[in-house]
Amino acid sequence: MSGIQVLLVAGTHGNEINPPWLFDHINLENNPLKELGINTIKIIGNPLARRINRRYIDRDLNRCFTSEFLNSSNSYEIEVLRAKELINQYGPNGKNRTQIIIDFHTTTAAMGSSLVLYGRRPADMALASLLQFRLGLPIYLHEGDKSQTGFMVESWPCGFVVEIGPVAQGLLDGNIILKTYNILEVFLEEIANIKNDKAHFPDKLLVYRHVKSLDFPRSANGQVSHFINLELQNKNWLPLDLREPLFSSIDGNNVYFDDENLSSFSPVFINEASYSEKNISMSLTHRESWNLEEVWKKSLFSLVNSS
Amino acid sequence: MSGIQVLLVAGTHGNEINPPWLFDHINLENNPLKELGINTIKIIGNPLARRINRRYIDRDLNRCFTSEFLNSSNSYEIEVLRAKELINQYGPNGKNRTQIIIDFHTTTAAMGSSLVLYGRRPADMALASLLQFRLGLPIYLHEGDKSQTGFMVESWPCGFVVEIGPVAQGLLDGNIILKTYNILEVFLEEIANIKNDKAHFPDKLLVYRHVKSLDFPRSANGQVSHFINLELQNKNWLPLDLREPLFSSIDGNNVYFDDENLSSFSPVFINEASYSEKNISMSLTHRESWNLEEVWKKSLFSLVNSS
Repeated sequence: MSGIQVLLVAGTHGNEINPPWLFDHINLENNPLKELGINTIKIIGNPLARRINRRYIDRDLNRCFTSEFLNSSNSYEIEVLRAKELINQYGPNGKNRTQIIIDFHTTTAAMGSSLVLYGRRPADMALASLLQFRLGLPIYLHEGDKSQTGFMVESWPCGFVVEIGPVAQGLLDGNIILKTYNILEVFLEEIANIKNDKAHFPDKLLVYRHVKSLDFPRSANGQVSHFINLELQNKNWLPLDLREPLFSSIDGNNVYFDDENLSSFSPVFINEASYSEKNISMSLTHRESWNLEEVWKKSLFSLVNSS
Repeated sequence: MSGIQVLLVAGTHGNEINPPWLFDHINLENNPLKELGINTIKIIGNPLARRINRRYIDRDLNRCFTSEFLNSSNSYEIEVLRAKELINQYGPNGKNRTQIIIDFHTTTAAMGSSLVLYGRRPADMALASLLQFRLGLPIYLHEGDKSQTGFMVESWPCGFVVEIGPVAQGLLDGNIILKTYNILEVFLEEIANIKNDKAHFPDKLLVYRHVKSLDFPRSANGQVSHFINLELQNKNWLPLDLREPLFSSIDGNNVYFDDENLSSFSPVFINEASYSEKNISMSLTHRESWNLEEVWKKSLFSLVNSS
């Protein structure tokens, strides 16, 4: 097959059940890419983990796309094998190769819908700008964090993660399903618009650039001693107010942020349940307005129109 | 030891992490029962399931307290063994026997804080009325449901479940922790008040009596075909409006409730994530105002003052 193909992924984490439920109930027969000759494939990222309603079985699938895991010959962990399978099947050099990927996730954090980009890849930036322009989605640019690597979309030439929340794991929620559906439709429309030369790019892009993640305060034995301050819990995307505590204990002891230079930072993923095993209570970002670069658009046009 | 003892339980479900976290961080040295000679014991219901952040390992612990399981000699399921252990240790005839139990849970349903009683036991009704009077907590009376039996508190002479929500599983949430703490303190205070003959009972009790549970609509292959209608999702405790759909599909197909006689029913546990494995999308209750009966108070006084 010539021309590009698009890969839609849901259920990369098996207990984020709403995007996979949507995938079970839509068909892509009438999607706007079909008449343009662009094939769209939808898959479940981690079907075994989905079956048992857990994030993963052996290892977080969305941390397995490192060269170390992908080139390993002696790992039989479920998710390492699945990562290799996905690359071999749908990767840019796979049997059924795809070039653009979108990976639908949900979060327990009250951060609404957003896009997560990994590194400053030009085509990603251009495509994300179209979704931000249409839907107002914040862009969380995840880069430079050596403790968190191996994200699935990094193995494709272009693509990103969509995060929608808040919703508990394993909980069917129509709100989340319909939001996922909406973003999926706009995503396909915008790729069609690029192909048809009808895409309207914004002049600027609003980016929340990852700076660092914070652990919970812990007692001497390593246990979490404080919870996230109640006032902060729902303040994703907003600049931190250093006069307000970050964490509180049940007896009223508060922990404040101790670096005045970071006052202009905005937390995201405040209270994502699955990140406690990664020792992350929230991530801090810097909110930046970037000019849209011509080279980004060219990169995206070139990819979409490649054969 | 003479006199009564009180058993506080958290983490009966291993992924409901906030009450156990609270238990780790409070001590009961200065609780109001101590000077009255009433011992208070706090335990984690299912410590093994807590360790792996799952509801249970082999079987829902809070469905294992049936005579069938408790008398079985050939079951080695983790939770069946744990149920027997709890009864042998803390049951009314146990080595370290307790007579009043409170079992703290959380729910993903947006139903706030409530008490769940199992059957119309006089002492339960009297004790619950005190908490309802102090804190306004709705009482969900679970009875007559043959498909859901074997609840822990039924194995003690008096006690009930506290449900606090909404919160995702595995998510530390200060709001939920502080609400749990507040109810725990009032619970202990009210037992002290009974002992001191200072309890103020209301004249009436507002009860949401369980009528039946509803499954999700399903397609021919048994898969859930519709999600709970967005308007209904947060309407726990409110009478159903039969003109509004119960369930919706992504293509706008709605499912209505088809029994006009049930219009005065109020749903609870709308969208509790862990109930999907039990084929429950919500439970329907009948909202009833009951007069407080003298025999209930007598039963509670008699229990608290027994030796």
